[in-house]
Amino acid sequence: MSSTAGQVIRCRAAVAWEAGKPLVIEEVEVAPPQTNEVRVKILFTSLCHTDVYFWEAKGQNPLFPRIYGHEAGGIVESVGEGVTDLKPGDHVLPVFTGECKECAHCKSEESNMCDLLRINTDRGVMLNDGKSRFSINGRPIYHFVGTSTFSEYTVIHVGCLAKINPLAPLDKVCVLSCGISTGLGATLNVAKPAKGSTVAVFGLGAVGLAAAEGARIAGASRIIGVDLNSNRFKEAKKFGATEFVNPKDYNKPVQEVIAEMTNGGVDRSVECTGNIDAMISAFECVHDGWGVAVLVGVPHKDAVFKTHPMNLLNERTLKGTFFGNYKPRSDLPSVVEKYMSKVQ
Amino acid sequence: MSSTAGQVIRCRAAVAWEAGKPLVIEEVEVAPPQTNEVRVKILFTSLCHTDVYFWEAKGQNPLFPRIYGHEAGGIVESVGEGVTDLKPGDHVLPVFTGECKECAHCKSEESNMCDLLRINTDRGVMLNDGKSRFSINGRPIYHFVGTSTFSEYTVIHVGCLAKINPLAPLDKVCVLSCGISTGLGATLNVAKPAKGSTVAVFGLGAVGLAAAEGARIAGASRIIGVDLNSNRFKEAKKFGATEFVNPKDYNKPVQEVIAEMTNGGVDRSVECTGNIDAMISAFECVHDGWGVAVLVGVPHKDAVFKTHPMNLLNERTLKGTFFGNYKPRSDLPSVVEKYMSKVQ
Ligand SMILES: NC(=O)c1ccc[n+]([C@@H]2O[C@H](COP(=O)([O-])OP(=O)(O)OC[C@H]3O[C@@H](n4cnc5c(N)ncnc54)[C@H](O)[C@@H]3O)[C@@H](O)[C@H]2O)c1
Ligand SMILES: NC(=O)c1ccc[n+]([C@@H]2O[C@H](COP(=O)([O-])OP(=O)(O)OC[C@H]3O[C@@H](n4cnc5c(N)ncnc54)[C@H](O)[C@@H]3O)[C@@H](O)[C@H]2O)c1
Ligand SMILES: [Zn+2]
Ligand SMILES: [Zn+2]
Ligand SMILES: [Zn+2]
Ligand SMILES: [Zn+2]
Repeated sequence: MSSTAGQVIRCRAAVAWEAGKPLVIEEVEVAPPQTNEVRVKILFTSLCHTDVYFWEAKGQNPLFPRIYGHEAGGIVESVGEGVTDLKPGDHVLPVFTGECKECAHCKSEESNMCDLLRINTDRGVMLNDGKSRFSINGRPIYHFVGTSTFSEYTVIHVGCLAKINPLAPLDKVCVLSCGISTGLGATLNVAKPAKGSTVAVFGLGAVGLAAAEGARIAGASRIIGVDLNSNRFKEAKKFGATEFVNPKDYNKPVQEVIAEMTNGGVDRSVECTGNIDAMISAFECVHDGWGVAVLVGVPHKDAVFKTHPMNLLNERTLKGTFFGNYKPRSDLPSVVEKYMSKVQ
Repeated sequence: MSSTAGQVIRCRAAVAWEAGKPLVIEEVEVAPPQTNEVRVKILFTSLCHTDVYFWEAKGQNPLFPRIYGHEAGGIVESVGEGVTDLKPGDHVLPVFTGECKECAHCKSEESNMCDLLRINTDRGVMLNDGKSRFSINGRPIYHFVGTSTFSEYTVIHVGCLAKINPLAPLDKVCVLSCGISTGLGATLNVAKPAKGSTVAVFGLGAVGLAAAEGARIAGASRIIGVDLNSNRFKEAKKFGATEFVNPKDYNKPVQEVIAEMTNGGVDRSVECTGNIDAMISAFECVHDGWGVAVLVGVPHKDAVFKTHPMNLLNERTLKGTFFGNYKPRSDLPSVVEKYMSKVQ
């Protein structure tokens, strides 16, 4: 038992008081964990595009003041009632989408969209009592996607925590809790390119780089990186991309450019931009007969995916995924092991 | 060798002289088969919606005069040069989409969209010399999808003919050459419902009835038939449908009605209408996390498939198929055997 168990912890957190305004480092109170909750000391946290997107709150439900952050690594400080899977001192990765292990999704081999704990960007409170565990002088500060890792201590539902190998360096593996696993899983678990196949990756941010890495691990023969920013190509090369297309360099749709480069289209494509036009291009650039396109980017709330149905009739497949179809508690520990054994 | 081999055959055919005008029974000349072609005596032919659609030619390339028909059964009369797989007397089913056995699609396990012989509704001539084998007093009459079975004799590429068990009754199995195999295969080869799962079938024409039958064979626990025409429900019951929804009976989208009936959506859906709204509903009515929707209906050339990309991100899969993903020469003979052994 840590000496702080059962007590309110006072610590520092980066608080977003208003949409788009700089975060302010404040002293916050973090209440003890309740039933099925865990209080975690956050050692490392990184910034993901999704934090920025909801902090900008352009169109999204503006829920302020709020503590953002969801890509992180930490150590369990104390656990609430009913928590048997974790104990103080365990190393954990918080995940924005959870796994209750009881619902139809958690029991399905195909889905990781837990009914109870799937990502909910509109909820700023804990499930147990509908309240926040953060406050400043009694004023509640909202949670973000159940993680709020921009705080030295945070309270998280046990279903949103992956227990990992304590030997794994938390400063490195913290990025596996969102973007990297999302991109890697989108390729390895969903697109599933066969050895020797051709893969296009749209968007070469952290997610896209990991998607390219997945294609490299799967043994793809050609990995075509697509980005509007040609500066990304150098980085993408390190992650396995073999060719690059900047749509701005052509005066025809990028799906046509890719079809010409690949004799009719790529075998697999993975979209990691969040841009609706890139989603449509990623779908239309796969080969008829067997091509599979996987959407990963989080679209604008008013975006509409449009295509001629004949593109589907021609035996293309279109899918989407959250978190690369990994189940956070069941699968993430082995992704960490993959890193530890430097699997190529 | 039949006595007619190598000769022009004069026989009767139903000729479409103009879009939407009644077919006229005419005496036509049918030239001998050229390289890789086969002349077939058609014994039975049925009418499929696709014939009607191109005869109406509302928006489609109007190619007249033309001989329609593609769902049929017949016997080989003579074969052209290079044909080794078929000989006079063989029983065959003509198919609107072919299998050359040489191209990337024919060699892929997933695709049946042969590069050389896939359905082409704009071509009215044979591949070998770009000419028609039908004429009336020297005036060429166009072919339709390489089959033109509304004629007592027709010339067909060897790749568009499935050689079947000569004991199979051609008057029955002729319908396996288009709609029935399309619906059956869409369910069994593409949607692949697990035993005990829920399946929605949109459109209860010949194709939809066969899709329902496929769901029954796969052991689906609930098969929800959806049609704007409630008269179809009685027939659909015989093919395994267990429940019915007429979208006209509700003042909300049918995808919502189905989601409420099934606690979030069906496991699989198969769209067999050709109507774009039904295609969108069929996609949006599948369960998130694992649902798969398969489009079969041939859409209007200006139709646009529209959905919010979040419906994909939520781990739904959207696919389309031609001819139920069956490869006509390789797979159709075994579909005929399935009928012969009355597989339940
Ligand atoms: N589905 C999930 O579970 C999940 C998880 C994490 C992130 N995401 C989403 O994945 C996307 C990528 O995340 P990231 O952190 O890598 O973002 P990022 O901003 O670092 O990278 C996005 C890249 O896409 C490029 N891009 C933008 N529009 C483009 C277009 N039309 N064509 C080609 N390239 C284009 C940008 O130049 C940029 O390099 C975001 O939408 C993010 O919200 C989804
Ligand atoms: N992909 C292929 O390989 C392939 C092969 C054969 C036929 N088809 C197509 O499959 C479709 C079905 O063929 P069929 O011969 O069974 O046609 P059909 O006309 O006999 O049956 C279609 C049924 O769909 C119903 N319907 C129409 N709009 C609807 C809507 N919005 N919601 C619910 N029901 C609706 C009609 O009432 C009718 O009962 C057609 O589009 C046809 O061109 C495709
Ligand atoms: Zn993230
Ligand atoms: Zn769950
Ligand atoms: Zn047909
Ligand atoms: Zn072929």
